[in-house]
Amino acid sequence: MDKLRKHIEEITPVSDQEFEYIKTFFSEKKVRKHQYLLQDGDMVTCEYWIAKGIFRAFYLDKEGKEYIVQFALENWWLSDYNAFFGQVPSNMNIVCMEEAEVYCLTLLSREKLASEMHKMEHFFRMKLTKGYSAQQRRICSLLSGSPKQRYEEFAKMYPGIVSKVPKKYIAEYLGVSRETLSRLYSGGNLQT
Amino acid sequence: MDKLRKHIEEITPVSDQEFEYIKTFFSEKKVRKHQYLLQDGDMVTCEYWIAKGIFRAFYLDKEGKEYIVQFALENWWLSDYNAFFGQVPSNMNIVCMEEAEVYCLTLLSREKLASEMHKMEHFFRMKLTKGYSAQQRRICSLLSGSPKQRYEEFAKMYPGIVSKVPKKYIAEYLGVSRETLSRLYSGGNLQT
Repeated sequence: MDKLRKHIEEITPVSDQEFEYIKTFFSEKKVRKHQYLLQDGDMVTCEYWIAKGIFRAFYLDKEGKEYIVQFALENWWLSDYNAFFGQVPSNMNIVCMEEAEVYCLTLLSREKLASEMHKMEHFFRMKLTKGYSAQQRRICSLLSGSPKQRYEEFAKMYPGIVSKVPKKYIAEYLGVSRETLSRLYSGGNLQT
Repeated sequence: MDKLRKHIEEITPVSDQEFEYIKTFFSEKKVRKHQYLLQDGDMVTCEYWIAKGIFRAFYLDKEGKEYIVQFALENWWLSDYNAFFGQVPSNMNIVCMEEAEVYCLTLLSREKLASEMHKMEHFFRMKLTKGYSAQQRRICSLLSGSPKQRYEEFAKMYPGIVSKVPKKYIAEYLGVSRETLSRLYSGGNLQT
C-alpha cells in the first residue's frame, strides 16, 4: 500500500495514523492479462486505482465494433464513472492488457472517506479536476483534430501509452484507421 | 445571490452566516447577447456560474471553422477548465447567446473557499463528479454514435437546450451536418 500513500501524498500529506485508516477502505485485487475488470451490463461496484498494469476501457456497438474510451496505466484511477456515480449498469468494458494489481474502492467507501476527512475530499476533487480537464481536451480533439494532430497531441500527453500499447488500440482510441496511424508512425518525426 | 444559495443547497446546506461569507468570493457580471465572456488567447481568470442566460463554448480551427465543446444554461458552471486549472491561455471562446448574468469565481477564490470550508470542497467535488460523468458519455457518443443516436441522447439529456438553441449550433455540437439534423427533427418522433 506504500505506492497508494505516495500517490495520495502527491496531493496532500497524510500522517501514519491517517493512512492506516485510509487503507482500510481499499481492497486489493490481482488481475491477469485479458481478464475483464468490468463487463457491460454489470453493476459498477468500484472504482479502481492501478498500482501496476495497463487497462483499456471500451464499449461495443451492436455490430461488435470496439470503441476505446480510455487507457489507464499505473497510478491512474479507472471506472465507468457514469455508471459508478449513477449506480446503474455499465455500458463499458474494462480489460487488463498487462498483468495488474488494483486497489478497489466502493462508492460508499469513497463518500465516507471524503466526508470524514477533508483532505481526502480535497484529494478526490483534485483528481477529478485533472480528469475533467483532460476530457475537455479529448472532446476538442475528437471534434476537430486531424488524425495527425490527434496522434501528436496523444503522443505528447501520454508517451507511456504510445510505447506500451499495441498500435491497433491506439488507432481505435484516436478514431483513425490502422493504415493512417501506421503512416503517422513511419513519419518518424511524430514518434518523439 | 439567492439563486446561488439555492444552487449550493441542492448539494449541501449552508447557514446564513456561511452564505454571507461564501458570496464575498463571487463577483457579478452582466453579459449581452453576442458578447464574448472569453476569447481564445486570453488568460482564463474565472470560472462562471450562470444565474441567467445561455452560452456556447467553442473553438476555431485554422480555417475558422467552429467546433462547439459545450452549451451552458442557467445553473451551469462554465470555463475553459484546461486553461483555468492549468493557468495557461485559453484555446476556447465563450459567447453569450441570450442576455445573461453570471457570477465569477477566480481560481484563488475557489481554492480558498474549498480549503476553508469542507462543505464547499464537497460541493465542488460533486459538481465535478457530474461534469466528469457527462463528459465520459459525450466521448462515447462522439466516438461511436450514429447522428440519430447522438441527437436522441442529446435531446433526452438536455431538453432545455433543444428548445432554446438554433439548430445550426446543435448540428455543430453533435458533429453532424445541418441537413442531417433537419431530417432528424422532421422525423417527428425525435422531438420528444
